[in-house]
Amino acid sequence: MAINPVGFKFAAVSAEVKKAGFQRLDYAFIMSETPCVVAGTTTTNRVFAAPVEITRERLKTGFCQGVLVNSGNANAYTGSEGLADAERLVKEAAANAVIDPGLIIPMSTGVIGSRLPLDRMLPKTESLVGRLGKDGFSDVARAILTTDTREKVICLESNLSAGTLQIVGMAKGSGMIAPNMATMLAILLINVSVDRDFLQESLTDSVDGSFNSITVDGDTSTNDTVLALAGPKPGLSCLNTTDDKRVFRSTLESACKSLARQIVLDGEGASKLIHVKVTGALSRDDASKVAAKISNSPLVKTAFHGEDPNWGRIVCSAGMAGVEFDPAALSLWIGDILIVRHGQVMDNDWETSAHAEMSKTEFTVRLDLGMGDKDSEFLTTDLSEEYIGINADYRS
Amino acid sequence: MAINPVGFKFAAVSAEVKKAGFQRLDYAFIMSETPCVVAGTTTTNRVFAAPVEITRERLKTGFCQGVLVNSGNANAYTGSEGLADAERLVKEAAANAVIDPGLIIPMSTGVIGSRLPLDRMLPKTESLVGRLGKDGFSDVARAILTTDTREKVICLESNLSAGTLQIVGMAKGSGMIAPNMATMLAILLINVSVDRDFLQESLTDSVDGSFNSITVDGDTSTNDTVLALAGPKPGLSCLNTTDDKRVFRSTLESACKSLARQIVLDGEGASKLIHVKVTGALSRDDASKVAAKISNSPLVKTAFHGEDPNWGRIVCSAGMAGVEFDPAALSLWIGDILIVRHGQVMDNDWETSAHAEMSKTEFTVRLDLGMGDKDSEFLTTDLSEEYIGINADYRS
Repeated sequence: MAINPVGFKFAAVSAEVKKAGFQRLDYAFIMSETPCVVAGTTTTNRVFAAPVEITRERLKTGFCQGVLVNSGNANAYTGSEGLADAERLVKEAAANAVIDPGLIIPMSTGVIGSRLPLDRMLPKTESLVGRLGKDGFSDVARAILTTDTREKVICLESNLSAGTLQIVGMAKGSGMIAPNMATMLAILLINVSVDRDFLQESLTDSVDGSFNSITVDGDTSTNDTVLALAGPKPGLSCLNTTDDKRVFRSTLESACKSLARQIVLDGEGASKLIHVKVTGALSRDDASKVAAKISNSPLVKTAFHGEDPNWGRIVCSAGMAGVEFDPAALSLWIGDILIVRHGQVMDNDWETSAHAEMSKTEFTVRLDLGMGDKDSEFLTTDLSEEYIGINADYRS
Repeated sequence: MAINPVGFKFAAVSAEVKKAGFQRLDYAFIMSETPCVVAGTTTTNRVFAAPVEITRERLKTGFCQGVLVNSGNANAYTGSEGLADAERLVKEAAANAVIDPGLIIPMSTGVIGSRLPLDRMLPKTESLVGRLGKDGFSDVARAILTTDTREKVICLESNLSAGTLQIVGMAKGSGMIAPNMATMLAILLINVSVDRDFLQESLTDSVDGSFNSITVDGDTSTNDTVLALAGPKPGLSCLNTTDDKRVFRSTLESACKSLARQIVLDGEGASKLIHVKVTGALSRDDASKVAAKISNSPLVKTAFHGEDPNWGRIVCSAGMAGVEFDPAALSLWIGDILIVRHGQVMDNDWETSAHAEMSKTEFTVRLDLGMGDKDSEFLTTDLSEEYIGINADYRS
């Protein structure tokens, strides 16, 4: 898919970030024609990388014009030297692009605990900035990958009262993890100008229902970051009506959901995509806690892999979520097949049909708590022998 | 090992609990000569089985003379009928043993969501009680197993001021789990009489440092129960001095630790035993949270399997535990090999020696938080391809 986002330029080069001589696109730059409004969310992990620390500072200002990304090295657990390394690269890119370094946000993903190879990256920065062009989107989407087996991109357009809204996005992440600890990164580029608080609010909500509602192994990394840059040409188009705002939010949410889904589909060793839907909860938070617990249970995930409608494991993992509910009020479906109704196991032959449903590559498990009207949906994968193989391999 | 606990009798029969015609020891009874003081801990899962409900009632009275256990069926998620089934069996055993049904505690482990086959179990109860004898300990230890590959038993003796303390125990559990959801059950039999509150307090502490500090897959079941029966012959010997109490607690703790270790060693698909020690925490609770998070991370456990000293994964999972700490204060060892000191990765060749340490079947990982002086130790296993194979198999 050729994607040419309005108002942004792209470039990627090989800076041999992972190790000298290791040639692949791994150093990338995205620049807007003019400063954008920026919003973002970063990892909740107590251990966070140097670029995340800088990103949080930049997000406070609310403006950004460029994103400087590398793969192959997370610049995490690198102390004050790591912070200085990131600042140094940003300064170099800013000097070449002739913009304020305070307008560039750095992102990194890859190995934890190694310093960035500035000796190889700094000399490449001039040519990186020099290569900026309208056609580099796909190169950048490739340059941010680590153990991912494919690029994750999305381009959505919607009609606003005064023009067309375009939201393009790219993401990386494969099971939140990789042989040396990977990351979920996503960058969303929006062609219209938006109020900063509205953008942050819309993004936080969208991330909650997408990137925060997927799981492959329950691990969150030191570098996880989602950025949204809006309005490379201020005034080109804006959100004038309530309807425009609604359209904006739903388009942003769709973009995030698509990227999140692509991440799960590329999950390490995953052979199935499972929607874990929890309904009838007293609060959305309760519903999410139960959905997350089910989605992360190795026991449930191996049953998914075995296409085994082992409802006891699902109910049991729900019971561990720390959420109050009455086991006698639970109902459970796999696809459309009702297995437990108000705490009573059905006595028809649900087993054969539920097994058939689970043999599909994508299916839904729904647990109704019978308590209220709030719900939450998680996307997860099965847990296969291949996952172990990918992650147990000795790194060197 | 021939174990003959003082003051207790044992019996086990086949009641074809799992299905008609399925012959194995699966229905067992333990009886004391006289009523014992009893203490216990039960599952924290919101979904708990009928026998657990009855156990909790019995524990309030503080007395128990018999334990009636079956494997092959958990009597969980069976509603009020399940409760009535358990009470019916208890009544039958009590009538045959000529004791108060209120002095019998039922335990079950096995498949969730099926009624107990009373038509097969009730007729066997008379011969079960009739077989009670001094030599049946090992039969009972075998009868409570499900996917376990071996019996888990312990017998410890210690000197008290006025005699010898004997604590014998049996447990079942293999990864907390099984094809149809299994359970951790443990029964401890103690020859001396003990104050009820002291027994409960000692047991709670012992369970905390043993059964609650092991993990194979982080799942807790609907039936998990630990029982301690003390004093089959009141006055035979008792705890007269502070030293006696200390000896009692440490013997009980050793018995629990041994059984917990045997459970981990029998963990599904486990090939290694790993001690995850977290030191330097502000509270024991903090230390336990971090140790649990590391011990349950699939990413860490696959690295253990791959014998990969991937310290980034350990530090990263610690960061997800919801405990405040300064990443720059962390130190990490694998065995005696220091890898991170106060947030700085060592630059000597720790990798080769750490890999060698991890190639052992048992080793220790220690993370010091550098915050305080509290600690906690978890036992965990590696995560192997075999675990998936065991748990993904379709049940039928």
